[in-house]
Amino acid sequence: MKLATLKDGTRDGQLAVVSRDLKTACVADGIAPTLQAALDDWGFIAPQLNETYQLLNSGRAQRSFEFEPARCMAPLPRAFQWVDGSAYVNHVELVRKARNAELPPSFWEDPLMYQGGSDDFLGPTDDIVLAYEEWGIDFESEVAVITGDVPMGATPDQAHQQIRLLMLVNDVSLRNLIPPELAKGFGFLQSKPATSFSPVAITPDELGDAWQGGKVHLALRSTLNGKLVGQPHAGEDMVFNFPQLIAHLCKTRNARAGTIVGSGTVSNKEEKRGYSCIAEKRCLEMMADGVASTPFMLFGDTIRIEMLDAAGKSLFGAIAQRVVQAGARKEAPSA
Amino acid sequence: MKLATLKDGTRDGQLAVVSRDLKTACVADGIAPTLQAALDDWGFIAPQLNETYQLLNSGRAQRSFEFEPARCMAPLPRAFQWVDGSAYVNHVELVRKARNAELPPSFWEDPLMYQGGSDDFLGPTDDIVLAYEEWGIDFESEVAVITGDVPMGATPDQAHQQIRLLMLVNDVSLRNLIPPELAKGFGFLQSKPATSFSPVAITPDELGDAWQGGKVHLALRSTLNGKLVGQPHAGEDMVFNFPQLIAHLCKTRNARAGTIVGSGTVSNKEEKRGYSCIAEKRCLEMMADGVASTPFMLFGDTIRIEMLDAAGKSLFGAIAQRVVQAGARKEAPSA
Repeated sequence: MKLATLKDGTRDGQLAVVSRDLKTACVADGIAPTLQAALDDWGFIAPQLNETYQLLNSGRAQRSFEFEPARCMAPLPRAFQWVDGSAYVNHVELVRKARNAELPPSFWEDPLMYQGGSDDFLGPTDDIVLAYEEWGIDFESEVAVITGDVPMGATPDQAHQQIRLLMLVNDVSLRNLIPPELAKGFGFLQSKPATSFSPVAITPDELGDAWQGGKVHLALRSTLNGKLVGQPHAGEDMVFNFPQLIAHLCKTRNARAGTIVGSGTVSNKEEKRGYSCIAEKRCLEMMADGVASTPFMLFGDTIRIEMLDAAGKSLFGAIAQRVVQAGARKEAPSA
Repeated sequence: MKLATLKDGTRDGQLAVVSRDLKTACVADGIAPTLQAALDDWGFIAPQLNETYQLLNSGRAQRSFEFEPARCMAPLPRAFQWVDGSAYVNHVELVRKARNAELPPSFWEDPLMYQGGSDDFLGPTDDIVLAYEEWGIDFESEVAVITGDVPMGATPDQAHQQIRLLMLVNDVSLRNLIPPELAKGFGFLQSKPATSFSPVAITPDELGDAWQGGKVHLALRSTLNGKLVGQPHAGEDMVFNFPQLIAHLCKTRNARAGTIVGSGTVSNKEEKRGYSCIAEKRCLEMMADGVASTPFMLFGDTIRIEMLDAAGKSLFGAIAQRVVQAGARKEAPSA
């Protein structure tokens, strides 16, 4: 099943069911008004959404319309929890190497995870509006899951049963704000502005064999200014799978329905797979040449993040965003 | 105006208006079903809630009933954002001194703030359920504000206009999990379990002259196992006021309606005012005697957090909680 949230002028948008091929959609307002409402009562609501999904796929749904990602908010336009792991420890190791810092051995056993802001997410084609290029604007291409209720102390197996949906993420980061902020010891705050999500959230069964062992075994494609810069496999080098990440979160507290858990920047040891964030590319340059030559994103730059299935079809639709200077949004487009 | 959220079996509870003296209440379901719904459309909803409040205070409200804090969830049982500052830098300095760490001078100009989990808050009299005393269970008595929509880049003056409500907080902390977690560099996650809030949230005007300069000029009382252990003044030694904390949060992103911003543990330089968390007491002991003698909280321990006005009346009602071992909740109460 594939679900989207359409812009309708409200804060939580309008829940819609989207066909498997992402071509048509229909609103779910007779079933649940919002995705959060569906997640709050998933056992009751999901089968009804799935009925609509089957009708849509067979071309028999009433009042269906063309699906347009540009009309989408994030599947959860605001959420009660967004935490992001760093499951691809290769990425963490690389970033540390570039600044001559050791990777603590515990990082291979104890997941890194940060609590993110979740009150103001961006839709898949919304502009990334920021005030200064000097902040070091970067994308981070990731996979994330949305959970049901997971009780405190849940095991990874128990957590696995509560994975409801998957999405793609652009965990926008302000690289030049990170070192001073992390030095303060309280984690990310200003250095992680609004996060963006794919047009649709999909149930794990949509991945077929590519969903195994709590990981997504497909490449995640990042295209920067029209050039494919990365296609690492999300199923490789993922040191902690999603059930383990959720269990880590739930050691001392419950996670309630609608919790979003990110994988961290997808990264493979095999260098030719490219990168899912500019910081990683710059680290490689630093180690090879002593200087980072690839700039962070500038106003006007674009980023596209997508995942294709074995047949080459887009699973989640694409995150396709442009970086725009704050205050410049209302100017007339250039002729 | 004073607002509470009553337990009704739903995730977001039932919004209620509470009389100034905290003796009576009436549900607001003809006006807004939940506090989040009220905050989402505050300009339209607040005047209607205020009408009910006036009727309630004059004893003319229909269908009013006795207000019972034990029936309360947190005013926002789940929120889209909870961030907590460390505005009482005295507290930070003390904790660092006890472990022979310097306080960076920047801490007096650049607020410390962490992003907290907001999907599963505790009501004012809910048990603090945790698995191990060995985690070092501690309370932290704080004041917090709830904001409306604050745009990215807002000044403190602009942020000030968006302060809708105030609450008291028990920012439960697991002291023995904090050092290893902060050493990982990504902030608090497991070391900050579910947070608790006062029975009612109140509009700033309820504080009268005690609300000045974006601070609450009253003492915050913490009573541990029936013994008053702290009554520091929340208006003294608060290095960053609430508008400054909100502006700090909004440097790179919007904060949307329903954002909760905490003050951090209230702490005065004047030692005789006592403490708002056990960690601080232990730091003083460590510096005086070389050893911390006051234990962290044990299963069965109780904490009460309250703020009285100049006339000695409770403004927010009391947070009054017991620490309970996970799995022990359903046992029959001892005879």
